[in-house]
Amino acid sequence: MSQPTYCLSELATRLGAELHGDPSCVISGVATLQHAKAQQISFLDNPRYRKYLANTQASAVILTSTDLALCTTNALIMDNPYLGYAKVASLFDQASKIKPGIHPTAVIAEGCVIDPTASIGPHCVIGEGTHIGAHSRLYANVTLYQGVRIGDRVIIHSGAVIGSDGFGFAQNKGTWYKVPQLGGVIIGNDVEIGANTTIDRGALDDTIIADGVKLDNQIQIAHNVVIGAHTAIAGCVAIAGSTVIGKYCAIGGRASIAGHITITDKVMIAGGSGVSQSITEPGVYSSSIATVQAATSWNRNLMRIYQLDEMAQRLRKLEKVLQGCHPEERSDEGSPKSAGDPSLRSG
Amino acid sequence: MSQPTYCLSELATRLGAELHGDPSCVISGVATLQHAKAQQISFLDNPRYRKYLANTQASAVILTSTDLALCTTNALIMDNPYLGYAKVASLFDQASKIKPGIHPTAVIAEGCVIDPTASIGPHCVIGEGTHIGAHSRLYANVTLYQGVRIGDRVIIHSGAVIGSDGFGFAQNKGTWYKVPQLGGVIIGNDVEIGANTTIDRGALDDTIIADGVKLDNQIQIAHNVVIGAHTAIAGCVAIAGSTVIGKYCAIGGRASIAGHITITDKVMIAGGSGVSQSITEPGVYSSSIATVQAATSWNRNLMRIYQLDEMAQRLRKLEKVLQGCHPEERSDEGSPKSAGDPSLRSG
Amino acid sequence: MSQPTYCLSELATRLGAELHGDPSCVISGVATLQHAKAQQISFLDNPRYRKYLANTQASAVILTSTDLALCTTNALIMDNPYLGYAKVASLFDQASKIKPGIHPTAVIAEGCVIDPTASIGPHCVIGEGTHIGAHSRLYANVTLYQGVRIGDRVIIHSGAVIGSDGFGFAQNKGTWYKVPQLGGVIIGNDVEIGANTTIDRGALDDTIIADGVKLDNQIQIAHNVVIGAHTAIAGCVAIAGSTVIGKYCAIGGRASIAGHITITDKVMIAGGSGVSQSITEPGVYSSSIATVQAATSWNRNLMRIYQLDEMAQRLRKLEKVLQGCHPEERSDEGSPKSAGDPSLRSG
Repeated sequence: MSQPTYCLSELATRLGAELHGDPSCVISGVATLQHAKAQQISFLDNPRYRKYLANTQASAVILTSTDLALCTTNALIMDNPYLGYAKVASLFDQASKIKPGIHPTAVIAEGCVIDPTASIGPHCVIGEGTHIGAHSRLYANVTLYQGVRIGDRVIIHSGAVIGSDGFGFAQNKGTWYKVPQLGGVIIGNDVEIGANTTIDRGALDDTIIADGVKLDNQIQIAHNVVIGAHTAIAGCVAIAGSTVIGKYCAIGGRASIAGHITITDKVMIAGGSGVSQSITEPGVYSSSIATVQAATSWNRNLMRIYQLDEMAQRLRKLEKVLQGCHPEERSDEGSPKSAGDPSLRSG
Repeated sequence: MSQPTYCLSELATRLGAELHGDPSCVISGVATLQHAKAQQISFLDNPRYRKYLANTQASAVILTSTDLALCTTNALIMDNPYLGYAKVASLFDQASKIKPGIHPTAVIAEGCVIDPTASIGPHCVIGEGTHIGAHSRLYANVTLYQGVRIGDRVIIHSGAVIGSDGFGFAQNKGTWYKVPQLGGVIIGNDVEIGANTTIDRGALDDTIIADGVKLDNQIQIAHNVVIGAHTAIAGCVAIAGSTVIGKYCAIGGRASIAGHITITDKVMIAGGSGVSQSITEPGVYSSSIATVQAATSWNRNLMRIYQLDEMAQRLRKLEKVLQGCHPEERSDEGSPKSAGDPSLRSG
Repeated sequence: MSQPTYCLSELATRLGAELHGDPSCVISGVATLQHAKAQQISFLDNPRYRKYLANTQASAVILTSTDLALCTTNALIMDNPYLGYAKVASLFDQASKIKPGIHPTAVIAEGCVIDPTASIGPHCVIGEGTHIGAHSRLYANVTLYQGVRIGDRVIIHSGAVIGSDGFGFAQNKGTWYKVPQLGGVIIGNDVEIGANTTIDRGALDDTIIADGVKLDNQIQIAHNVVIGAHTAIAGCVAIAGSTVIGKYCAIGGRASIAGHITITDKVMIAGGSGVSQSITEPGVYSSSIATVQAATSWNRNLMRIYQLDEMAQRLRKLEKVLQGCHPEERSDEGSPKSAGDPSLRSG
């Protein structure tokens, strides 16, 4: 198949961008600032890459008006160059165009309703009574258990497993008795699910992924989790059972979210954080230890973490002693701990 | 297929529960307190959900005698309502009944012994000389390498890979020389293995998962790990090579367990913890940073973690100064650090 | 198939080892020190296992000259006994010999170039235009998307997904607009990729895994990551987009590496660490909280982490007070914080 070409003025119109330079410049592809060649368009969004702007070989660059002065080639000016790049890239994306139909190696159980515009890749397995909406795409080797409902325009990448049993066992004289997982999974419209991500079916009610949610690779979503619309979750996040996450949230990679809690709308969680309590206010939250030190320094600091409560008690004791020594010092702290406090250590 | 129905007295007998209310009440399904309708039975186990008891529409609720006073409908009283719910739910579980046999798309290598009561799902691949016991079930897209032994009544969810090579390489002049993985994997009876979980074969001896072990999704178990009977491990736990975990342990989600250590029986590890040393006493252990703060506050605290050893030295110094200032202060600490200690910083 | 046998002198020659004992001793297998029987060879590398040397039933042991005195059987002396063991084990490894050819259940799209010496396992799916080099092996259920390039002697374990879309979305009035992922994935020679590991295709440029890289199970590698030659990465590591990792690095299990950073050659990262900033010097780095405490102790220490900045301020304040009290104390710290500092809390 041959690559399409566009003149820059046509791209400007499609993006709603302001054109600086030659409207008739021909664009036949998109590339990074560093690697673009003639006839390719690039973009500048992340300031880390501004250093490549001056010497780019791209025939045009999508950027904000702020960066225009640094641009030595044609420019398309937009408030959101990353969105502009995404739209241009989709014009040149031949490989991932959806081909409707069910691959002959896919195994579809009875009672499924699969929209004829959907694409089911090789070796997919789809359990009984599952629904798949219009223009949805399952790449190869996706497994859907019975009774899963997938909306329209959903993309599910290879190795994803949706509808497996939630992890539910009751203690029975020291051993574990399996709790049947009778709920389903409901996936809204315009959801994308990454490779090898797992979404368990509900125990009684359903596990729900609302419209527009984007899930990266290797995410684990336990039974009865509810994820609100347009929330984006980066790779390797784990969400334990029955937790409810709001709309328009952004969860950084490798975050761990405990079960049975509620996170309100518009919450951002830093990658690597652990979340064990509900979050009721929008905002940016973290508990991530994100920066390495030389191991010898780190290990000295780490050792102190295990002594922190003792250090705090010793600090408090010094403050009390010093307050006696300097009676003019004012303390905002409440009443001192009673002498009987077993955690109080003399230092 | 039609749902079965039971009268409440029959359920009470099956569960060994004490019935309060109408023995002839008809039950045709199970649901949560919030979503139950007439003819459905519910349960109260987690106190978080007690608030839904008064207004539930369920025709009966399984609960402890403590919660009976709050119950406005028929009740089945048990010490362990969660177990009662599990047993009732299994009565109503139609979808997941096992259908013996090997799906025609499964690929079975030579020399395998698969019990005729076992169920092998679509697109499973089973390597040479593998054994699968009675009533065991492999959902779709499970991969077993050669020489894996699976006991009776084992459930393996989709995407799980059992018997892949352990990660073993010897340094050879800067590059890596592969260490052949000649051991196998032995899975006991009544084990459940979650979706996309991986269990590597042993290097020389076998990797062993004992009877009754329950593994959630996306767990990684490295070569030569041994997991004792009836231990339950939540999602996304990683266990490095040659580690031995005891019986009746419970490992919280996303915990990381180092290699070559031993964890005794009846140990509980909090989710998200890192375990790098052997644990010799039963108990509850943690090293998890489980609660997020507003990122601005967290980042200030985080910065201090990297200074903790210095802070500890400064605290110690103050204590020494103050001891000189207040000679009546008693110190329980040992001898002070020598002045030559290079880590001692004056503050 | 029958196991081969070797006499010890032949093994010594093949390994370049110094033989102590009976050159004609027959060796028919390899085993651990604890479980070896007559006619088996074992090895001692990790000092944890030295205690098993005296009583081993092995007919020979590969070890360093340092451990020779403790050895009561025949010995092969090498500087790197682990490498010797790896080489001997490969002599006895029958099961994992590669069988060239494409399994009839594999699905190969158009335009692929697969070397005839390569082995493609059951139910593999390989997208359009993908190249696979000589003697490379895909175990069962591997998925390669379109346009992936795999070098020679590459091993890819089951469930791995290579070439899935990177996680790229542009904000568009509160919802997410998919950024097409137009790059590819390039895997060098002699790479091994573990079970259920995922490697995303690049957004514009390629994701690159250089020669000799070894990846364990359940690793997530995001779009446009570059991993330098002979770097080894243990299980469950997550690497975010566009990060560049050098040559000869070793990344411990469950480490998390942020996007858009650069890690130089010969860096070792402790398992469980978070890395959010570039590393420019070779060395060993950590930010891992690797040791559990009894949960009651840990929770007291954990609570203090959230107060650390306040504690640091209080410590500073005591130092200042005490400096006033003891003017002869020298301070190496810079100018004290201004009284107007809003973060300064009186304690």
